[in-house]
Amino acid sequence: MASNDTMVIGQKLVELCGAGKGMDAIDQLYSKDIVSVEASADGPMDQTMNGVDAVRGKNQWWYENHEVHSGQIDGPYPHDDRFITFMKYDITPKAGPMAGNRFTMQEMGLYTVAKGKIIKEEFFYHMG
Amino acid sequence: MASNDTMVIGQKLVELCGAGKGMDAIDQLYSKDIVSVEASADGPMDQTMNGVDAVRGKNQWWYENHEVHSGQIDGPYPHDDRFITFMKYDITPKAGPMAGNRFTMQEMGLYTVAKGKIIKEEFFYHMG
Repeated sequence: MASNDTMVIGQKLVELCGAGKGMDAIDQLYSKDIVSVEASADGPMDQTMNGVDAVRGKNQWWYENHEVHSGQIDGPYPHDDRFITFMKYDITPKAGPMAGNRFTMQEMGLYTVAKGKIIKEEFFYHMG
Repeated sequence: MASNDTMVIGQKLVELCGAGKGMDAIDQLYSKDIVSVEASADGPMDQTMNGVDAVRGKNQWWYENHEVHSGQIDGPYPHDDRFITFMKYDITPKAGPMAGNRFTMQEMGLYTVAKGKIIKEEFFYHMG
């Protein structure tokens, strides 16, 4: 079965992100050696980032460049040392080609847990 | 970006499963060497099954032992050579400890594609 760690970490992530405390989730749950991978290599940022500082920077950029009207997160759905969450955001980008255009963003997050910390996050979505 | 194969295969899977044609999806989209992995080792069946005949058998067993009142599937959410779908079923098991009890089952499926076929499916869910 999914290890207790996996479920506990997944539930904490959903709880914190659901409360708009994504940066707290990073501080509390992420390994310093976290690997973060976007869905594709042709997006607006590097597909793969390494280390908690880079991930913190990516999240800070995102929060600063998007107006979030509402968001929801569903999960965790566990499988051994991994779990999946579903995220849906109603947002308006403040910069870039979609600036000012309100739309709904939906994505899946696949997380890998080791020794009580999230060591990898991989995002699954389709760029319109 | 997600390869064309990944999106095309994912869309076909969602289309067929959404139309209740799960066995057709296996026939058309699965590699003969498919590996199928359930969420945990303590469920009612082997966690890992190998080969399309075993997977066909598992699905046949499931369809024969569950009354499916309704179902929905959302996706695909792609990431390189993998994609995720979300499945929700309103079911009543015909056998086992939950026989006769109608409930909603929700799970994520993580699929890996190679050479135009699904070579791995992994299911993510929490056993009550």
